Amino acid sequence: MSFSPLIRQLIDALRGLPGVGPKTAQRMALNLLERDREAGRHLAHALESAMEGVGYCRRCRTLSETEICDMCDDPRRDDGLLCVLQSPADVWAVEMAGSFRGRYFVLKGHLSPIDGLGPEEIGIPALLERVEGSAVAEVILATNPTVEGEATAHYIAGLLKPLGIKVSRIAHGVPLGGELEFIDGGTLAHALAGRTAIG
Amino acid sequence: MSFSPLIRQLIDALRGLPGVGPKTAQRMALNLLERDREAGRHLAHALESAMEGVGYCRRCRTLSETEICDMCDDPRRDDGLLCVLQSPADVWAVEMAGSFRGRYFVLKGHLSPIDGLGPEEIGIPALLERVEGSAVAEVILATNPTVEGEATAHYIAGLLKPLGIKVSRIAHGVPLGGELEFIDGGTLAHALAGRTAIG
Ligand SMILES: [Zn+2]
Ligand SMILES: [Zn+2]
Repeated sequence: MSFSPLIRQLIDALRGLPGVGPKTAQRMALNLLERDREAGRHLAHALESAMEGVGYCRRCRTLSETEICDMCDDPRRDDGLLCVLQSPADVWAVEMAGSFRGRYFVLKGHLSPIDGLGPEEIGIPALLERVEGSAVAEVILATNPTVEGEATAHYIAGLLKPLGIKVSRIAHGVPLGGELEFIDGGTLAHALAGRTAIG
Repeated sequence: MSFSPLIRQLIDALRGLPGVGPKTAQRMALNLLERDREAGRHLAHALESAMEGVGYCRRCRTLSETEICDMCDDPRRDDGLLCVLQSPADVWAVEMAGSFRGRYFVLKGHLSPIDGLGPEEIGIPALLERVEGSAVAEVILATNPTVEGEATAHYIAGLLKPLGIKVSRIAHGVPLGGELEFIDGGTLAHALAGRTAIG
């Protein structure tokens, strides 16, 4: 069986999406071509705009199309409280939970010496810079409740404590071994409220 | 929670894909933005090219970017055998099965008087035109094994028989109530081989 080149190329490109296998990619391609070309054109445009236009917030390092993101820019949020997470997806998850009104700082994942990911690589010096001389009074470490996330949290706690900053860890209402972005909003809100002092 | 406009637009556009809900669309958007912008740009380009460049084969009416598709153009295929299907997806499914070497004709779905879909709307006059005065000796009706697909097959059989053309129906190895495009190649090959005369 040979699809024509443009259809083959479309199916292959759709397989670049996470969780999309060959059968699903075929169904997607067919659906767009047969039933909704407008949706296909719209998606092409949205992809192009986002791939070009979305960068990272200079302040919190989450995905943002402005130099300073809306969350960093919002004057109603609490400057004294800084939530540290492993990825923009985790920021989205905490925002969905809806109860947190402080600021964010996004690391590039967790410490993983075996993969060559030390403090520098995941952005810990930038976090210290963000905190020092700022209004931040408490840092909530909301790295994933995995072995690596715990280790990363403890490493950061060890650096922040000497600076006289209160450091807390989200409560283990979040299931051990889980990934923050897949946890429901209620559990996350609960875990944030029940955070405990660390170190 | 408010995503920035470009990210929101991307998530919404991804939800235009079949089977993609809000959580999946978020995960896809994040994956492209954080890990693979090249894949995102590639998909944008593939979508644009396919939405503009893919039309329908003038002869068999399947999706094609050339006026006459490769299957209609292939001199090694049997002109005497014409397989009639409900959609381009079904052509793909039969081609994947790999055993059929005749020609195709694609209807626009099945007869559905209640939805205003009569013979004209689904392309039956064009099918008759395709068959009359051609080398087609046998028409295999491979519409879906559903009530509507059966009714459509019987309607077409009633029109072709008087023309002295052999008309067959794919064997009911295909599960009743199923949709052709989701059936495995082996079953489809078997159903084609075991086709029976109709009417
Ligand atoms: Zn920010
Ligand atoms: Zn064709």
